[in-house]
Amino acid sequence: MKGAAAGGNAVFVDISHDVPRHDIRAGAYLLWSAAPAFPPGTVHCAVVDPGVGGARAALAVASGGHVFVGPDNGLLIPAARRLGAPRVFRLIASPGGDTVVSSTFHGRDVFAPAAARLAAGEAVETIARPVDDFTDLVFPAGRRRGRRLEGEVLWVDPFGNLITTIPGGLFADIAANGAVRVHVGAGSMTATVGKTFGAVPRGKAVAYVGSDGVVEVAINQGSAAALTEAVAGARVSIGPI
Amino acid sequence: MKGAAAGGNAVFVDISHDVPRHDIRAGAYLLWSAAPAFPPGTVHCAVVDPGVGGARAALAVASGGHVFVGPDNGLLIPAARRLGAPRVFRLIASPGGDTVVSSTFHGRDVFAPAAARLAAGEAVETIARPVDDFTDLVFPAGRRRGRRLEGEVLWVDPFGNLITTIPGGLFADIAANGAVRVHVGAGSMTATVGKTFGAVPRGKAVAYVGSDGVVEVAINQGSAAALTEAVAGARVSIGPI
Amino acid sequence: MKGAAAGGNAVFVDISHDVPRHDIRAGAYLLWSAAPAFPPGTVHCAVVDPGVGGARAALAVASGGHVFVGPDNGLLIPAARRLGAPRVFRLIASPGGDTVVSSTFHGRDVFAPAAARLAAGEAVETIARPVDDFTDLVFPAGRRRGRRLEGEVLWVDPFGNLITTIPGGLFADIAANGAVRVHVGAGSMTATVGKTFGAVPRGKAVAYVGSDGVVEVAINQGSAAALTEAVAGARVSIGPI
Repeated sequence: MKGAAAGGNAVFVDISHDVPRHDIRAGAYLLWSAAPAFPPGTVHCAVVDPGVGGARAALAVASGGHVFVGPDNGLLIPAARRLGAPRVFRLIASPGGDTVVSSTFHGRDVFAPAAARLAAGEAVETIARPVDDFTDLVFPAGRRRGRRLEGEVLWVDPFGNLITTIPGGLFADIAANGAVRVHVGAGSMTATVGKTFGAVPRGKAVAYVGSDGVVEVAINQGSAAALTEAVAGARVSIGPI
Repeated sequence: MKGAAAGGNAVFVDISHDVPRHDIRAGAYLLWSAAPAFPPGTVHCAVVDPGVGGARAALAVASGGHVFVGPDNGLLIPAARRLGAPRVFRLIASPGGDTVVSSTFHGRDVFAPAAARLAAGEAVETIARPVDDFTDLVFPAGRRRGRRLEGEVLWVDPFGNLITTIPGGLFADIAANGAVRVHVGAGSMTATVGKTFGAVPRGKAVAYVGSDGVVEVAINQGSAAALTEAVAGARVSIGPI
Repeated sequence: MKGAAAGGNAVFVDISHDVPRHDIRAGAYLLWSAAPAFPPGTVHCAVVDPGVGGARAALAVASGGHVFVGPDNGLLIPAARRLGAPRVFRLIASPGGDTVVSSTFHGRDVFAPAAARLAAGEAVETIARPVDDFTDLVFPAGRRRGRRLEGEVLWVDPFGNLITTIPGGLFADIAANGAVRVHVGAGSMTATVGKTFGAVPRGKAVAYVGSDGVVEVAINQGSAAALTEAVAGARVSIGPI
């Protein structure tokens, strides 16, 4: 892919190669998490693409001055929506010119060439046409039910921290007495409310509003995921102790 | 290595850090697979180098407007040959100037400085002299024997897909009735003929001409390698069902 | 982090994402090992930061024409000291301008923005103030005791080679008869003295002065770490056979 996009003045940065195979939702989370840190003008090329070579379309999605390029399977949508009101385009065939397009590696043959043209300054309309229909993907926001916050695990990061779908703005009220009871998957634990990992001794649980603006649960220098066996998608419920 | 090559205007891209230790053949495959996607003018610096610091020479190989820099152990040759008629040069001592050359890290002390000088526009002749003898490496092309295609596993990709040495051009005739019988290593399976993974239901086998132009065998959203325990180098035979 | 640092003309290179979680000493070693290969003017942004969001300061450390940016926990110091006499600065709040600073991701919100400003040419004094106190970290140099060299394992590299704290300059005398006895952790082995891995047959042990200038112990195309179960910090003693 980098070869197919090389040759201009673009600067490449890799965000992650750690998306589990075929896990569109995990890829969508990582893109959603990383995209806001980039400046307007960034072209994000993302590929988690079990449907490569089949009927799924190839998209360019413009939002907030960024453009996202990748498959039409929901991967790009949460990130694009986080940055503004997405305008969705379908790539016109052969953004890579006369390159033969394989059926199994559109990252190299379709997405990277399209991203390179956009990064070189071409308008998205020159390589894509607007469409109304696309595959949507929504991370359902956690919510408050009575005295509990309910949501799910959005992502288990490489430290084993549990990033949830519960908006950080809901946390202060539930967390007011300094500790919360967390139910996640089949397990539960008491977590101190803090701002960061070091708010608790090593090996102890802490709940906090993390760098994505949502509630997270961690073990200081340990793994909340290993302790709870929680995986992405697991139900989370957090209430006062 | 990146430090030793830094300072100019070159753009760095990483292709892979996943080559198994000491596996020259695996590195040669990845370079062969990736190189054609890059534009002419690219300098490829590749290091799989169990013989570092010993008698093996350091090479620059020019082909098709690209230059490959690395050890003289076969690593560079399949990629160079894929792009044209290679011209092989031996690096003159100390492309890194007065840097002390270690005996165990020529990537940093020899190859990266040489690649940086080539990327900055120096002619290969200024840092290397042409040679006739070098360590060759050939991926023997699979071939047709009667009603079967015979070759070997060239690479097991991170999805567990089996990339074979069988040229894609041989496949259509054998695949004409829509399914093939694949023998690989000690196992065998029936695979649907398709263009891509999604041609079969999840968990089913598919045989197709992949993005390297050779026949591949995969399990849709599964691992053909795990199913067959096949590794690179395993014999493959594919025939009509 | 790359997003927060993007937008200028800086060239990004990744050195390693393989530092074990929370292992400041391992990160400090990798930075110490890599930094001297980079040219003056390089800005190194390094984050191993179990104390993120707590009382620990954020530093910029200038040395030998390089600047190191990261947490005040010792991570930056061995590399900076290797390049010259470090001048230590504490980052003024909010190098990222009006970015809201999270409590758990200073890599994105503090260190990367500061590094980007330094890479764009701002003087360190404009974003940081000099300090006298900082968290030090020293790799204690191995030394000679009678006829033995004593030190510890500084790093186990991905090949399983044992990089020790024993200065290479001490090795020649002990190694004069061509083989040494190595005690590491609870095990011991005889190693041939060589310049590089290929000095011994595959599977045999070799001791040599490595690319960091210190004594290393390796198994040619094998793993000295697997054989000895040695980890970073293990005591090493090397003497004549």
